Amino acid sequence: MTQPPIGRDTRLCMSLSGRPGNSGSRLHNRLYELLGLDYVYKSFSTTDLPAAIGGVRALGIRGCAISMPFKEAVIPLLDRLEDSARALDSVNTIVNDDGRLSGYNTDYIAVRDLVTARAIDPATPFILRGSGGMARAVAAALKACGFHAGTIVARNREAGETLAARYGFQWRGEVPEQGAAMLINVTPLGMEGAESDTLAFAQTMIDDCDIAFDVVAQPAVTPFISAAEAAGKTLISGAEVIVMQAIEQFVLYTGIRPEPAQIVDAAACAHGEPLAQRIAGLTEPRT
Amino acid sequence: MTQPPIGRDTRLCMSLSGRPGNSGSRLHNRLYELLGLDYVYKSFSTTDLPAAIGGVRALGIRGCAISMPFKEAVIPLLDRLEDSARALDSVNTIVNDDGRLSGYNTDYIAVRDLVTARAIDPATPFILRGSGGMARAVAAALKACGFHAGTIVARNREAGETLAARYGFQWRGEVPEQGAAMLINVTPLGMEGAESDTLAFAQTMIDDCDIAFDVVAQPAVTPFISAAEAAGKTLISGAEVIVMQAIEQFVLYTGIRPEPAQIVDAAACAHGEPLAQRIAGLTEPRT
Repeated sequence: MTQPPIGRDTRLCMSLSGRPGNSGSRLHNRLYELLGLDYVYKSFSTTDLPAAIGGVRALGIRGCAISMPFKEAVIPLLDRLEDSARALDSVNTIVNDDGRLSGYNTDYIAVRDLVTARAIDPATPFILRGSGGMARAVAAALKACGFHAGTIVARNREAGETLAARYGFQWRGEVPEQGAAMLINVTPLGMEGAESDTLAFAQTMIDDCDIAFDVVAQPAVTPFISAAEAAGKTLISGAEVIVMQAIEQFVLYTGIRPEPAQIVDAAACAHGEPLAQRIAGLTEPRT
Repeated sequence: MTQPPIGRDTRLCMSLSGRPGNSGSRLHNRLYELLGLDYVYKSFSTTDLPAAIGGVRALGIRGCAISMPFKEAVIPLLDRLEDSARALDSVNTIVNDDGRLSGYNTDYIAVRDLVTARAIDPATPFILRGSGGMARAVAAALKACGFHAGTIVARNREAGETLAARYGFQWRGEVPEQGAAMLINVTPLGMEGAESDTLAFAQTMIDDCDIAFDVVAQPAVTPFISAAEAAGKTLISGAEVIVMQAIEQFVLYTGIRPEPAQIVDAAACAHGEPLAQRIAGLTEPRT
């Protein structure tokens, strides 16, 4: 479809993060192009969060993705929290309706839908490493899908115990020797940077599991995902989470749910062909 | 040249006005395209000017055009005023250098350069109708070009007398029967809306003048400009002022002065071919 030129009626959507990337701009702008929508998307950073959010409101910016380190700090600046964001104390999406700002958490929605799309049995025992905002979103999504036999592994006892207790899971300070059928990494292990070579779980645990779920998205293939893929396990990668949560943002901003083929096209544009093929393998998350 | 896709390094420029138009977006975005610049331009309105300007600062928006009704109200929100903006108490352009906001008045610059480009003798007597912010910019530009034999016509005695006295011109409450070689309209007479059919000066005065200068830009051809064109007079139209002041904004935002052919191309994109031909007739305003 033909996209109109940028003008007074064009709606701006944006992201705010400490270290802005380009994949959000590529994904959203590609979907606007495919759907002929009068929108434009751009990533921003800021050193003054209250003024930036005030600008979102005053300029009528339609939607704003919120990433590290602003997901909790943004909450008092909003007018309303949707249930998932309130339960998680973490906002990754703002929708602006005529100056009224609502906070959502599409990480939660994306994880819930990905786990559902992979048809993973909720009786599956899991070990989840991590206790931050994203770990809360994953734990809450698993709970919502009916998972109950889980262990949260976190060195920070207070955060780990609180998170585990909130959703009826166990807490451990260290990774147990005994593995689990589903292994979930929600720490920076394997992420670009200092810990990029670190395997989030021991190779023996990976060999013994059925499902490997890594929330790290940069790189798209972490050592953990790579090892699990080599061992023929069912995979959920952080890049898939990033794409699917961005699709949920797109739906909130535009009111339009793209067709699966459009999602695959936009994922290829933003993250490359290999990830797009993985996205294509998903059933449509919500119909 | 190839324009990069919108991403984290793309610089946003924008406009803020009570009634946003599309010509600024078309002109700036076309120049970015022609020059392969990683910029994007979009118009906005707001009901909360301080929060909007706070957002410009906090989001690192590179430049912001200011139109009615914000040209004076924006001044206390800025960090610095360039000389012309301070002298006029009117800002139509904000440049954001790493959070430091400077106010400029490119209407003044554009009028000064257009009058110079038309090679109008500064000894030419003129009548200028109007006493608002734009009338101040035109009067100041004429003064800077050496004009001295002028009459400011304004029903508002205080504004008219103050403006005339500031630049050494005469003031009259009504248009004098005796015309002048240069007639300048800086009122809404002839503008789209209630007064669109009104001729800013009597036909006999137009017949007797040499130069007709109308600041009204919508429509591009006002009754005054149309009558003066039919009578074979030298013309300066409001649409030309709009284009040339936007070019000055472009230079302030990007540090690049487009080639004359690029200006003509962008003017055609924003305002259509007839105006572009008039812009092409100008000598390069500053070399």
